[in-house]
Formats: sequence, structure tokens, C-alpha cells
Amino acid sequence: MFKTQTKLRPRYAETDQMGVVYYGNYPQYFEVGRVEALRELNLSYKDMEASGVMMPVLELKVRYVQPALYDDEIKIVTTINELPKTRITFEHEIYDSNGKLLTTGSVQLVFVDMKSKRPRKCPEELYNKLKDFV
Amino acid sequence: MFKTQTKLRPRYAETDQMGVVYYGNYPQYFEVGRVEALRELNLSYKDMEASGVMMPVLELKVRYVQPALYDDEIKIVTTINELPKTRITFEHEIYDSNGKLLTTGSVQLVFVDMKSKRPRKCPEELYNKLKDFV
Amino acid sequence: MFKTQTKLRPRYAETDQMGVVYYGNYPQYFEVGRVEALRELNLSYKDMEASGVMMPVLELKVRYVQPALYDDEIKIVTTINELPKTRITFEHEIYDSNGKLLTTGSVQLVFVDMKSKRPRKCPEELYNKLKDFV
Amino acid sequence: MFKTQTKLRPRYAETDQMGVVYYGNYPQYFEVGRVEALRELNLSYKDMEASGVMMPVLELKVRYVQPALYDDEIKIVTTINELPKTRITFEHEIYDSNGKLLTTGSVQLVFVDMKSKRPRKCPEELYNKLKDFV
Repeated sequence: MFKTQTKLRPRYAETDQMGVVYYGNYPQYFEVGRVEALRELNLSYKDMEASGVMMPVLELKVRYVQPALYDDEIKIVTTINELPKTRITFEHEIYDSNGKLLTTGSVQLVFVDMKSKRPRKCPEELYNKLKDFV
Repeated sequence: MFKTQTKLRPRYAETDQMGVVYYGNYPQYFEVGRVEALRELNLSYKDMEASGVMMPVLELKVRYVQPALYDDEIKIVTTINELPKTRITFEHEIYDSNGKLLTTGSVQLVFVDMKSKRPRKCPEELYNKLKDFV
Repeated sequence: MFKTQTKLRPRYAETDQMGVVYYGNYPQYFEVGRVEALRELNLSYKDMEASGVMMPVLELKVRYVQPALYDDEIKIVTTINELPKTRITFEHEIYDSNGKLLTTGSVQLVFVDMKSKRPRKCPEELYNKLKDFV
Repeated sequence: MFKTQTKLRPRYAETDQMGVVYYGNYPQYFEVGRVEALRELNLSYKDMEASGVMMPVLELKVRYVQPALYDDEIKIVTTINELPKTRITFEHEIYDSNGKLLTTGSVQLVFVDMKSKRPRKCPEELYNKLKDFV
């Protein structure tokens, strides 16, 4: 299991007139969680794209427990539980600044060769780094 | 079963550098589907809030089949399959302008009394209108 | 002077906790105004990009008079006052459903050749269509 | 003159199919600049709202020099040049990770009493803190 975390403050732009973070902004927070998880492994999604591999999303699930609030620093915990093949799943939990659980979710992505537009195996570099954890 | 549809054109703002609509923008499209479904019933979510009922989201699921493209008019089909109690579930399918399926998903919301902040039953007006279909 | 208009309903996603449309969402509304202005001329920005011309923005100005409200259908009036050379300026006015002025603004864009990445003249097709109005 | 800076990485969500940050996302970056400028003064916009003062935007200007890129850490420099009365203006400059200027802009806001909905003077606490710099 590879587990990492990052923090951010919801922006005013991300709230809605219910006075909380809009439900549709959590996929962006999950994205931040994913990207920082890769960075923790000394990898960058930017470089992965530059090397010809992209990762479109296949499936998203979000369960909303409590709403995140404007400017209250949230913690995004990101976990990879299984070694990726052509697909990879990131599990996320979001907590408020008091440690209360706000949201859980998961995102499944597929590795795609940008030239052939076809699914391909997880890049070796990522696979090898994850092998030490998962 | 209550079923309705609406159309919109993805904005440039909604694309990402993969050249397609960003995965996190579909919840907004589902929101458009929900709101127009209510309008089809001569109801407005705006009025519902004005009358003291809000509808936070409990659960979101999205399955990505093909990406939506900039400016290509998509059709959002919204279905309510069950009579709501304190919760209501909207099912969504999104099609491109050629009728190809792009995305499926569902959103579960809960009716909340804005004063007590507690769950409540589906407003009668909505329930009665849905009864004719579901 | 070429003048056209289009309508849209602000989404819940576009509001913020002040209970109105977030100030940073108006550039998206201006984008909708621009794209529909081109469509009114039987042109599409999508086709323009496909033909190798893109239009990055150089300058944006917005003056906020009254806030737009959730679900209240706004009218976006878009005007082109001058024949474009390598640059084109769109002027925008946004009105609420009662005809009250909400926002004014302008967006200056430059025509860029996607291969050379350099500024170029306004595509002839657009220029010729605008000549009849401006 | 009060001057401060903060950093952030543009998200994939914030890019568009031109492969750069969408022009309409810079107002959000300016918002981050403003909020962090206040925090630098030991003030929070959140607390200001809680105390009954809100700050709607009156005017926005952006000049786009070079586009910001996905994941490349940008620096947002925020300056207040004049002591606020009922209005306050924030000047912004955004730089890429190499120190190249990407964007300049300014945002003028007005202090509004949330009860009366009328303009009011800059809260004393903010005024007094700025007095030492401006």
C-alpha cells in the first residue's frame, strides 16, 4: 500500500451559494492528490505526458460525508492499494483541519499510448517504484 | 420512470490539455441535467431553496466511455427511476452530437430543511408530480 | 458594428458563498458570447483551430455593476466595433432577465498561426463577413 | 506599498485544449494572491465575512504576456499601493518557475456591510496594518 497526503485551502471560487465547496470540485482535489502522490515518488504526470503516456479517467466515485469549507485547510490522503497493470486506482480521503472526515472517493485511470491511442501497461518507472510499497 | 433531456455545448474553459472535456466537469453537466429535469416538471431548484429546502449531494458515480469534445453539442439524458423519500437519485447519460454514448453516471441527493439542517421528506409538490411517472 | 446576443442560465457551480455568480466566471460567459457571435456569422472557433489558427487572449477588462444570480437567465450582448487586423476586440454587456445591466467588459485576442506560433492577419473568411457590418 | 507573494501549481483542470492555463482562471489565481496577502497581515477574509464585511469585486483587468503551464509552479506577487477607503485595489504579477513574467492585472473591490448591503469604510484592523506599509 502506497499512501501519501497533501493539503490545500478551498478557494472562494470553489464554494457555492450553499456556503460550502461545490460537489463538483472534489474531482479537482482528487487530481491534486494524485499528482502529489506521483511527485512523492519522484515522478511527475507532466513528464509522463511528455514521454507519450496519458492517463484518462475511466471511473469516478465520491461519497460526501461533510462539506469542506472556504479557506479551511483540508488534507487529501491518497492511497494506491494494488499494483497497476493497464489501469491504476487511486483511493482518496479528505479531512478538514480538525481531522474530521469530509469525503471519500476513488478514481480509476487507464494508461494510454498517446501515439496509438491504445491502452498500454503501466510505465516501468512507476511500476517499479510502487512495487516497494504495494 | 421520469425521463427528460437537455443539450449544451462544452465550453473552451471546460476542456483540458488532453484536448477533451476535463473529467471533473461532468458533475456540472449532471447538475444542468437535474435542474432542467425539475424545470420540465414546472419546478425550479431555485424556488425550492427559497422555500427552505436544499439538496446537498451524498454520492456521485461517473463512468467515462468516450470524451466529450469542445463545442460539440452533447445531449444529457436524466432519469428518475424511484419515487424519492428523504433521498432522490438522478441517473444520467451523456451522448455526443452523433448519438454516441460518452458518459453515464448517477447522483444521489438528500432533502434538507435549511433551518433545522436535518434531512426531511421530499417536498410534496415534487413527489406528486413524480408519482405520475415513476 | 456587428452585434449579437445569446442567453444562458448561471449554474449552481458558478455561484459562490456570497450567493451570486463568482467574479471569475464572467470570462467564461464572455467566451460563450464570442463563440456564439462567430456562429451567428456561420463560423466556428472549432473550425478555425482545425484550420490552424488559434486566438489566445491578450487583454481582459470587466466592470461589475450588479451580480448575476443562480438560474436567472442572463443575456450576453457581444459587439465587434472595429475590423480586425492581427487583433480582434469583443465588447460584452451582460443583462439579467429583467433587462438590468450586470456587467460590461472587453476581451482582446490575437490571431496566431498554430505552426509558426506567430501572430498573423485575421482569416479572410472572418474579415469578409465582418466587413458587411463594421 | 505592501507587497507579498505566494506560489501554486496550475492544475490539469485549469488548462484548456490550447495546452496552457485557460485565460479565465487567472482571476482565481488573483484571489489566491489577495487571500494570502491578507493572511500575511494576520487577517483572514473568512473572518472578515464572519464579522459582517464582504468584498465584492468592482473591476478586473488582466494583461496576458505568456501563458502559464500545467504543474509549473507560478509565483503570484500581490501589491497594495494605496491606503483603502471604501475601496481597495490589489495589483498582481504572475511569474513562471524561471522568473519570466506571465500576467499582470489588478482587482478593485469595495467593502460592503453585509446587513445594510451598503458600502462602508475599510475595517480599522486592516487599515491600521496597511498604514505601516503604504
